[in-house]
Amino acid sequence: MSELSYRFAEEADLPVMVELLADDDISGHREQNGSQILPEYAKAFAEMMRMPFNHMLLAESGGEVVGVLQLVFIPGLSRRGAMRAIIEGVRVKSTVRGHGIGSALIGRAVDEAKRAGCKLVQLTSDKRRPRAHLFYRRLGFQQSHEGFKLEL
Amino acid sequence: MSELSYRFAEEADLPVMVELLADDDISGHREQNGSQILPEYAKAFAEMMRMPFNHMLLAESGGEVVGVLQLVFIPGLSRRGAMRAIIEGVRVKSTVRGHGIGSALIGRAVDEAKRAGCKLVQLTSDKRRPRAHLFYRRLGFQQSHEGFKLEL
Repeated sequence: MSELSYRFAEEADLPVMVELLADDDISGHREQNGSQILPEYAKAFAEMMRMPFNHMLLAESGGEVVGVLQLVFIPGLSRRGAMRAIIEGVRVKSTVRGHGIGSALIGRAVDEAKRAGCKLVQLTSDKRRPRAHLFYRRLGFQQSHEGFKLEL
Repeated sequence: MSELSYRFAEEADLPVMVELLADDDISGHREQNGSQILPEYAKAFAEMMRMPFNHMLLAESGGEVVGVLQLVFIPGLSRRGAMRAIIEGVRVKSTVRGHGIGSALIGRAVDEAKRAGCKLVQLTSDKRRPRAHLFYRRLGFQQSHEGFKLEL
């Protein structure tokens, strides 16, 4: 593994991001297969860019994207008007898992959140991913909440 | 109980919203006590208003605010570019709990999310609130995830 570098994604990164989102046993089936990018992805990316802070953070190694997560900053009234960071869709390329890329990517996201003045970082993880839960606890996260989803 | 009505909060609603946030056994201590509103709350509210959709939804009964929640719409790439709604800080005035206000308020938030084209509504609930978990399951939410928080 070459050293990791980080950057926020641009529209040209859509194909590799969709590939990474689909490269997952539990939720990969929800994404598109094949080389043509659904226009919905480009539309969603454009909408992300219209928010004050809603970015895809990429980890690269040797010029190749090997990890991605979505990082969103949400101002709110709770906790005396604290801004919180929400992390969604953490993915590491399946062929390079187990090399610390996920941990480094989360660490970088936490640093970005701190620098922006967030007081809290939060995420949810499917109950079918016990290894991910151990991973987040080791990174210092409190497994303090139940996560609920309602599909519309 | 008079019939409920709903509206999105304005800045003038800050005192009653902070009072509701503080009216909670588990997380109320994180909020300010007393009648002077911390400038942080007004600043956070102004930042919320700068997002495409980040609102406090209020339930009123007989001209009085009896419930509040934060409703945020987040575009993202996952699930073929699905927009998701995030609900935070659900509070019902302690003197009128058990009258279905929370349920009605969540129902209204879900309707707003549907109307805006969201494919998913998600929230987390502290593991110390088993009655809230039953409440969300009864409203059709899947308790499918673990919720992690990291305080910065």
